[in-house]
Amino acid sequence: MPDHNSNPFNLQQYLDEKQKFINDALMDIICKHFTDSRLCNAMKYSLMASGKRLRPILCLAAAEAVSYILNPSVISAACAIEMIHTYSLIHDDLPAMDNDRMRRGQPTCHIQFDEPTAILAGDALLTFAFEILTLPETLSINQPHVIFQIINMLSKAIGCQGMIEGQMRDIINEGVTIGLEALKEMHALKTGALIETSIQVGAILGNATPDQIHHLTIYAQNIGLAFQVTDDILNIEGDPVSMGKDTGTDRTRLKSTFPDLMGIAQSKKYADELVNNALHALSFFGNKAIPLSVLATYIINRKR
Amino acid sequence: MPDHNSNPFNLQQYLDEKQKFINDALMDIICKHFTDSRLCNAMKYSLMASGKRLRPILCLAAAEAVSYILNPSVISAACAIEMIHTYSLIHDDLPAMDNDRMRRGQPTCHIQFDEPTAILAGDALLTFAFEILTLPETLSINQPHVIFQIINMLSKAIGCQGMIEGQMRDIINEGVTIGLEALKEMHALKTGALIETSIQVGAILGNATPDQIHHLTIYAQNIGLAFQVTDDILNIEGDPVSMGKDTGTDRTRLKSTFPDLMGIAQSKKYADELVNNALHALSFFGNKAIPLSVLATYIINRKR
Repeated sequence: MPDHNSNPFNLQQYLDEKQKFINDALMDIICKHFTDSRLCNAMKYSLMASGKRLRPILCLAAAEAVSYILNPSVISAACAIEMIHTYSLIHDDLPAMDNDRMRRGQPTCHIQFDEPTAILAGDALLTFAFEILTLPETLSINQPHVIFQIINMLSKAIGCQGMIEGQMRDIINEGVTIGLEALKEMHALKTGALIETSIQVGAILGNATPDQIHHLTIYAQNIGLAFQVTDDILNIEGDPVSMGKDTGTDRTRLKSTFPDLMGIAQSKKYADELVNNALHALSFFGNKAIPLSVLATYIINRKR
Repeated sequence: MPDHNSNPFNLQQYLDEKQKFINDALMDIICKHFTDSRLCNAMKYSLMASGKRLRPILCLAAAEAVSYILNPSVISAACAIEMIHTYSLIHDDLPAMDNDRMRRGQPTCHIQFDEPTAILAGDALLTFAFEILTLPETLSINQPHVIFQIINMLSKAIGCQGMIEGQMRDIINEGVTIGLEALKEMHALKTGALIETSIQVGAILGNATPDQIHHLTIYAQNIGLAFQVTDDILNIEGDPVSMGKDTGTDRTRLKSTFPDLMGIAQSKKYADELVNNALHALSFFGNKAIPLSVLATYIINRKR
């Protein structure tokens, strides 16, 4: 386990501040753009539940690692990313998919509302992410070609050769024993692609150099996989109350997991190894990457 | 009924040519970007079924009404629009929504594959539409700020205050008697918004003037509503074989329709009136709008 006891950086305070920052930005968007319709209420219900906001925080932290000022387009992008993540959770939780009843400490969208509302709320959050990225006020800050590139990267990362393909494989693989490489590839698509792109988007909007993007990408790929290994461990050892969702579900759904394939102890060691790789890639940035390095260790030490 | 017998324009030939053009462009994209995965196969299955291709044809026809050359970005946009339309059909057909078993003359996506695959194929087509709009080859033709504007318009038109809200109201209204204004508003969202935006997108990518866009918008709003009035009539009088889907479904689902509220004869008269308004708006363009004018009459005379 990487030792950060000597680091005066206060992780909890950082997370609290950044979560509040993201929540305020999301609420600001909701107030400006949502109506009081059933559809918007369902979107808001899932979006404003107490998520970790990990992806938008990584986006902001990547921008901060390469730049001194957070420009408004980074905040819009971070919010769009959280909307995309929330849409993916709503659809993954549907009865036809993982059929989950609890998420982020509250009933899932289709339980709280109903199934058609949840399908449409997911569709609408995905769609709204692209609207947010192309608001005229976003254009005024960045050159449009940068936003253009970001939309292309994001849609690739979450599309039929990214996140959605990962979710498809996750479903196809239920009840099937797959090898370690296939498991890694599935998670690289299902979870890794959006985490990686969140970090790259932050970096690009912070005007990162190609070299900086390269190192941040190595960091991202390692923490993306470490995140999923830890998720698998938490699904066995985690406390459903602090996680805000049911545990033990991988086993009941006969999903292949890292602990299945390599055992719990070896899985923890593997997660440590991945985080060490991530930290190594950050050495390129010096002190400016302290938040990213602490976030990497948080990813494997988290309780939810 | 507007009389176009004196018009030498051959509608069937025009539709055949344009449908082939769109189908070839879609197939080209599929060959370049899809894999042989279950997910991509489901996307292709629904996308390449024998749709009317009305929205992309309207997009191309609008571009042709204001410009002499079809640039590649109009074709990309037309394909993106058909992907969005197909995603909306796949999700609307789901068991939790309209629970339809036939569409475009073949089993619906969730019948042919299964429910999770259909949900994900819809998600992926929606996502892919934004990827197609931001391919580097699209950027090289148009200024990025134009594509930026188009993504913003499209995501608004199909979002939580556009198409998805229309679908939500359609579901909420099942079994409820609503008034004519509420019915018009619901259809303006559910069907009208995407038809209107298809035409505006074609116009903008054809470098239309604000005046041209204004007249095309009036045309679009009228044919959008005429399309839905005709759909309601076809749901009663249409032949399921030539329509490629079941009829009589509005009645079994207790949906309010134009024939319910104003009778069949009056509904037909209303559709004629709307098309006349649309044709009036086209007089601004002279001969260049012949395809659009013939398409308007096709919309109310179609058999599917």
